[in-house]
Amino acid sequence: MKIGFLGGTGIEAKGLALRFGAAGFHVMLGSRDRERAESAAAACNEIIGSSNIRGATNEEALADTDLVFLTVPFEKALTVIQTHQVDLRPGQVIIDVTVPMTFAGGRAEYLEQGSRSNSEILAEELPPGVELVGASKTIPARILADIRQTPECDVFVCGDSQNAKAKVIEAANLSPGVRPVDAGPRANARILERMTVLAVHLNRRYKSNGARFRVVGI
Amino acid sequence: MKIGFLGGTGIEAKGLALRFGAAGFHVMLGSRDRERAESAAAACNEIIGSSNIRGATNEEALADTDLVFLTVPFEKALTVIQTHQVDLRPGQVIIDVTVPMTFAGGRAEYLEQGSRSNSEILAEELPPGVELVGASKTIPARILADIRQTPECDVFVCGDSQNAKAKVIEAANLSPGVRPVDAGPRANARILERMTVLAVHLNRRYKSNGARFRVVGI
Repeated sequence: MKIGFLGGTGIEAKGLALRFGAAGFHVMLGSRDRERAESAAAACNEIIGSSNIRGATNEEALADTDLVFLTVPFEKALTVIQTHQVDLRPGQVIIDVTVPMTFAGGRAEYLEQGSRSNSEILAEELPPGVELVGASKTIPARILADIRQTPECDVFVCGDSQNAKAKVIEAANLSPGVRPVDAGPRANARILERMTVLAVHLNRRYKSNGARFRVVGI
Repeated sequence: MKIGFLGGTGIEAKGLALRFGAAGFHVMLGSRDRERAESAAAACNEIIGSSNIRGATNEEALADTDLVFLTVPFEKALTVIQTHQVDLRPGQVIIDVTVPMTFAGGRAEYLEQGSRSNSEILAEELPPGVELVGASKTIPARILADIRQTPECDVFVCGDSQNAKAKVIEAANLSPGVRPVDAGPRANARILERMTVLAVHLNRRYKSNGARFRVVGI
């Protein structure tokens, strides 16, 4: 499986690219600005001593990949999906890591969008045959981006296609220190997105920057 | 601190009473039916070899206790609080463990009540000086009720009164195998209640009956 990124130059993309690159996957970091993507890829390759990670345009990152992480800020995600509708191919799986959150008054708060999660909203914009899976919403980018750290947490994977979830779980299983967990249907992104807000509260309360979750008893 | 229960004859109350009774607290299990409460108390005392747990009416359980667990089914919680408004005393802390959930079509789903959590709805019915804390929403009753099991998980405590949260955290700290975590303001019950729905999904998916959460990194 090849892994692409839409919006591949931020810290979230960096962390995931490092982990999947180190696990041996071919990774394409996409960006509107190819040079920035190439520079991000070179920096990642240097950290893990590989040549698995390449920089490209967003279109190129979609052309030849099986799993595509959507790692843009949540408020841009819908536009990015709409812009690239024509570039998506049947069989591709979009992995949505976005979390709608505001920091009004200095306190993290979940941004309600009716009762729907961002994953549900984005999924409606995908062409037929392209599946969306919500995953890695609750794992802090900073933890993933520091390759010396073992996350030791669960990655919750939700979606309405068992086949798409299975692909994501299979890929995540190859990254040490995370346990992929089938977190049910796409609508459970409503829960996962809010758990990230809780993690931000816990970070502040306990002066951490890496609060994350592990399920006991399964 | 003395601990009371409104609705003290179900499995949730049993589990909590066992844990707090074993930790040395005086516990009053309240019920509309005093005999049922006394019978539940006797059963608990026998399990832990103590006389710390007593059965009483709900009114009696409120008369002389500092922390009061609200352990009725979520759909009865509002009525119970309204019924006992006159029995509540300033300084008391109600600990709301309820989770609004439906099982329509055999699948657990969070029961949306506008955008508010059950804890927020209940808190509005309390007389002045009585605080509500949401806690233990995510810990399965079955795990607590089996005293041979060590939960090895976090108990998330949310509320708008730091003082009330501190009392609950102090009490929970005396029960081995759980780590009380300050989960922020009362509105974060919106997150905690939904996490229980996720746990139910995970139980079904992984053939468990004890999925629960632990935060890594704090």
